[in-house]
Amino acid sequence: MLPRWILPEYIDDVLPNEAKRVEYLRRQLLDLFATQGFELVGPPTIEYLESLLTGSGKDLDLQTFKTIDRLSGRTLGFRADITPQISRIDSHLIGSDNVVRLCYCDKVLRTSPTEVDSPREVIQLGAELFGFDGIEGDIEICRLMLKSLQVSGVVNPILDIGNVAILRALLRKINCSDEEKVEVANLVQRKSQSELSDLLKNVSKSDRDMVLSLTELFGDRSVLSEARKLLARAPEAISGVERLEAIYDVISDLGCAISFDLAEPHGYDYHSGVVFTAYAQGQNTPLGHGGRYDDIGSAFDRARPATGFTLNLRKLAQLTPSVEMVGNKKCVYAPSNFDDKELQRIVEDLRSKGVVVITDLIGDGTIKEERSFTDELILVDGEWSLKPVIKST
Amino acid sequence: MLPRWILPEYIDDVLPNEAKRVEYLRRQLLDLFATQGFELVGPPTIEYLESLLTGSGKDLDLQTFKTIDRLSGRTLGFRADITPQISRIDSHLIGSDNVVRLCYCDKVLRTSPTEVDSPREVIQLGAELFGFDGIEGDIEICRLMLKSLQVSGVVNPILDIGNVAILRALLRKINCSDEEKVEVANLVQRKSQSELSDLLKNVSKSDRDMVLSLTELFGDRSVLSEARKLLARAPEAISGVERLEAIYDVISDLGCAISFDLAEPHGYDYHSGVVFTAYAQGQNTPLGHGGRYDDIGSAFDRARPATGFTLNLRKLAQLTPSVEMVGNKKCVYAPSNFDDKELQRIVEDLRSKGVVVITDLIGDGTIKEERSFTDELILVDGEWSLKPVIKST
Repeated sequence: MLPRWILPEYIDDVLPNEAKRVEYLRRQLLDLFATQGFELVGPPTIEYLESLLTGSGKDLDLQTFKTIDRLSGRTLGFRADITPQISRIDSHLIGSDNVVRLCYCDKVLRTSPTEVDSPREVIQLGAELFGFDGIEGDIEICRLMLKSLQVSGVVNPILDIGNVAILRALLRKINCSDEEKVEVANLVQRKSQSELSDLLKNVSKSDRDMVLSLTELFGDRSVLSEARKLLARAPEAISGVERLEAIYDVISDLGCAISFDLAEPHGYDYHSGVVFTAYAQGQNTPLGHGGRYDDIGSAFDRARPATGFTLNLRKLAQLTPSVEMVGNKKCVYAPSNFDDKELQRIVEDLRSKGVVVITDLIGDGTIKEERSFTDELILVDGEWSLKPVIKST
Repeated sequence: MLPRWILPEYIDDVLPNEAKRVEYLRRQLLDLFATQGFELVGPPTIEYLESLLTGSGKDLDLQTFKTIDRLSGRTLGFRADITPQISRIDSHLIGSDNVVRLCYCDKVLRTSPTEVDSPREVIQLGAELFGFDGIEGDIEICRLMLKSLQVSGVVNPILDIGNVAILRALLRKINCSDEEKVEVANLVQRKSQSELSDLLKNVSKSDRDMVLSLTELFGDRSVLSEARKLLARAPEAISGVERLEAIYDVISDLGCAISFDLAEPHGYDYHSGVVFTAYAQGQNTPLGHGGRYDDIGSAFDRARPATGFTLNLRKLAQLTPSVEMVGNKKCVYAPSNFDDKELQRIVEDLRSKGVVVITDLIGDGTIKEERSFTDELILVDGEWSLKPVIKST
């Protein structure tokens, strides 16, 4: 038998150095969201399974831990994603017809790692904008995600942008079943031209060529000009390209490298419009992703336009260059003279200014504290004074 | 079938007004802990069941949601308590022989409400001190809990203090099995004198009377003087009373009502020394509790003295009088002219000062925003200026 302190695979503790960075960044980003009008909400960790999986695909089902509710006898799921919960809150608890902005920072659990060697528990931080389907909504969300990366200290992030609406427009032109549409979407994502040709062999050459062209439409801004030519005979697809052009115009000078991929990497069954994924330079796995998902609310009987993004807070915190939290600099030693009112006053005063003061519980000079001290409170001529600790070399 | 947006019983969302208070208090208290040298850690939500239940009683088992780990085939538990996890981190990840101070703020889940009408998901916030068994440790933890209540705005809290070491000392004098000891402890807690007399009929009258006397030793400071008389023939029990006297001397002027209960209300199988429970005036259910649990580490093969406390953050946040978070006062309306660099500069400048500025996505004056505005950015003679919104009456 394994020792009792061994954790399950891909499950770990957040220890002090990391926890401090994560907490710092959590505050920075939630404050950033607040100043843009996004209000914090905290959905619960568990819900009835069918609520959690509402409007989502098979993938989320497999990723969701399940248990039985003693009170109702029904199956509960531990959320593997928070976005659908925020959508539920917008639909049914806030229930407005106006624009609603919500944000969150909470943990999700997955039955297996979604990326190589990544933890199964992820601290998700995100912002969602409901009730507006115009391009200004896509732009606000895209800019806020870039701003979040900037605040986190990510240097020259890479933003990969697509638009599911383009593929959807092409699929509407093709006479095929919903199952076939999903298969086409998968093949486009995998950029499998030969399989696509085969599957679409009964479709007009013109339509087939347009679908096939998506698999080659990835790269810099020039991809959009190319798309305008190749998709010219599908006006609805072109309006999807126009949306990407307008976003590019607004975010191109915000200090990130932008690439496009019209065979977009996100779930076709979930997203409905502009989608984006953010990377740090030299990293293969994303820091976060987002996009438009106008359809999801309908599963809660109340369709609302929606777009948003989610970031992996622990991954982001690894990139944060410096942390200026309470207790980051000085660490003061104080003896434990509880009945010395003057000492206690000085200690409380220092702490109220954000200085860490540790009371030595033994108090006889035989310090047995794990933290190392930069300064100490010592009695000089009957008065407590703060002196730097001289390190022996 | 119930609609899909219905949550399980005793599970709820934290909506914006409450979430703001909870986040505010979380920061205040974690900063308070930091200045006293307590370092933040974040243990995972799930662990192998036997790790989570290590050193704990049957109650925790019943309260723990279980599921199967796809990767190992073993049973996982969703933690119903965080303290044992912090003890595991102290024992095995930090592994120091010195004093270690750790704190945390995270969610726990229970299979049924532990108090009438309370949510099954609780945001626990706590601080734990490891590696020191002296009374200075009990005092530090007790004071920190009181300070936390004060920072939270709890007016005249009630602190109910006991010491499990007193009962344990008496039980060591009695010749009975471990099972009988647990039963005695339960009867003492329930203050069932007649059942106790019956169970202890073969014990010397002197010892029996001392155990029975615990059931009447509750009330103000005078209880401790009474205890000194009644328990005089059990010196080990008296040293437990002395510890309570010393704690009283230090905390009696800190603005809380102190009561003692030597038939302490905490788990006999878990705690080992001074224990305390905090209440707000007029409330029956506690805001938090804490105490010494020197034995728990031994379940992780590394016994360490330990004492700490945990608070119910949502319950505490209900008592917080005012919240001065980012975005609490002004809420400014701005049109969505993304290409007006001067407007964007002003908006960013306001936000960097903590002012909420919401971009009206429509931007044609037909505002459809859920938030109401206190001020607006409008163009006057070609310059953007901030004007208060005049409310129509």
